Amino acid sequence: MFGDDLRIIYKNDPAAKGLQPFLYPGLHALVLHRYFSHPLYKMRLLFLARLVSEIGRFLTGIEIHPGAKLGKGLFIDHGAGIVIGETAEVGENCILFQRVTLGGTGKHAGKRHPTVGNNVLIGTSATLLGPITVGDNVKIGAETVIIMHDVPSNSTVVGAPGRMVKLNGQRVDQKLPRTQDP
Amino acid sequence: MFGDDLRIIYKNDPAAKGLQPFLYPGLHALVLHRYFSHPLYKMRLLFLARLVSEIGRFLTGIEIHPGAKLGKGLFIDHGAGIVIGETAEVGENCILFQRVTLGGTGKHAGKRHPTVGNNVLIGTSATLLGPITVGDNVKIGAETVIIMHDVPSNSTVVGAPGRMVKLNGQRVDQKLPRTQDP
Amino acid sequence: MFGDDLRIIYKNDPAAKGLQPFLYPGLHALVLHRYFSHPLYKMRLLFLARLVSEIGRFLTGIEIHPGAKLGKGLFIDHGAGIVIGETAEVGENCILFQRVTLGGTGKHAGKRHPTVGNNVLIGTSATLLGPITVGDNVKIGAETVIIMHDVPSNSTVVGAPGRMVKLNGQRVDQKLPRTQDP
Repeated sequence: MFGDDLRIIYKNDPAAKGLQPFLYPGLHALVLHRYFSHPLYKMRLLFLARLVSEIGRFLTGIEIHPGAKLGKGLFIDHGAGIVIGETAEVGENCILFQRVTLGGTGKHAGKRHPTVGNNVLIGTSATLLGPITVGDNVKIGAETVIIMHDVPSNSTVVGAPGRMVKLNGQRVDQKLPRTQDP
Repeated sequence: MFGDDLRIIYKNDPAAKGLQPFLYPGLHALVLHRYFSHPLYKMRLLFLARLVSEIGRFLTGIEIHPGAKLGKGLFIDHGAGIVIGETAEVGENCILFQRVTLGGTGKHAGKRHPTVGNNVLIGTSATLLGPITVGDNVKIGAETVIIMHDVPSNSTVVGAPGRMVKLNGQRVDQKLPRTQDP
Repeated sequence: MFGDDLRIIYKNDPAAKGLQPFLYPGLHALVLHRYFSHPLYKMRLLFLARLVSEIGRFLTGIEIHPGAKLGKGLFIDHGAGIVIGETAEVGENCILFQRVTLGGTGKHAGKRHPTVGNNVLIGTSATLLGPITVGDNVKIGAETVIIMHDVPSNSTVVGAPGRMVKLNGQRVDQKLPRTQDP
């Protein structure tokens, strides 16, 4: 897992020279999550898991709830201010920039945070709220806001509220479909 | 005060299990503000007050100016990147999410930050600037921007610039009234 | 340089009383950048330079890549969540608020971050991406998004995407000119 996280940094960051990625807070946050807080969460040692997660937040500025499920090969670039909720899921080979929120609306119980597919890039300050589904091969622009709407695979979404501006390589301008309430 | 802050967390956060809220940076920031930096500010020990406030910012990512007046029962959820200005006031039973700014426009002296009522929820990354007034029972959506406009009680505001989309339970679509220059 | 950074704080921040500015994280971040990480970068001690920059990020919440060129008299107000990229340049007497991003689009190599002129104020959460040029005497509003568009001198820009609303003191409502791809 660590190797995948490192590989996607070198592949995507022009500033990642020499051993510098070992200094990246995004990598530190992932190591703490993957090898400590998430395993503790699965053992139901919830307080301890949360303690590790809060230490990670203090060190890196990145807040990942111990319950979040993160696929392999994740690049958290800069990362400060990221909030990833308890029931959020992220697929493989994704890139998250600083201040991305995978959060809840406050109106749902149980599964209440986004599920993100593979090969998804989420730009600076994008806010995704609710048990929404984001497909594969998606780009979500900086400062985009998506609340209780799903994002189809192979699309690009920008704006607040987010609108689809590209789908399967074609320029479009469409509303996103509303997420079905569970 | 501490008891009220704790109670509103348990009431509103589905992830607040067991003793976990004691680990929340929002609670730590409030303890430092209510029991240390704000009392020091009122004793006019301004440098010491600011020192405590900066230590709080370092530990929690939440920046509360020592002069800010915060009502009882405040839930600062996640909290990273919050900035609350010197003359800001917040009422009782409010919820602030990460990156909320209660800031100034740079054009006013004296009272230059927002006054927020009771039972107000302010979403992720909302930016409120100037000596504006936010009424009671208000919801302000994620990434909303409100500069020198007031928010009536019992309303919901979203967008940048913020527009009223709900008032007294009815859907509306109205501009906010401009704040009178002091 | 330190004197200039201090002077612009006292000039612009009504809350800057007594010795309080010495506690400001923005000032700490600039000292670390100007006197340690940027000089180390110019000596090509890249890992060490980055280490200092990450320590600065940990202490202040402000991430300045060691390669960034910052002009004299810079006021970083609050500052938490600021990201300034490797090839970014900022002129003299500028003010940056919390969460400003001077970042890249991911599509450019070499010079890939903004060049900002003199006497520029960039508001809370503004996101500037790509090798764009921002002229002198510019104001960029809170939460503005500017991607691959240039900003003329003596203008005010707001919105997402950013539009020019003032030019040479006259109210206007114009699109920004697209940045020429290098």
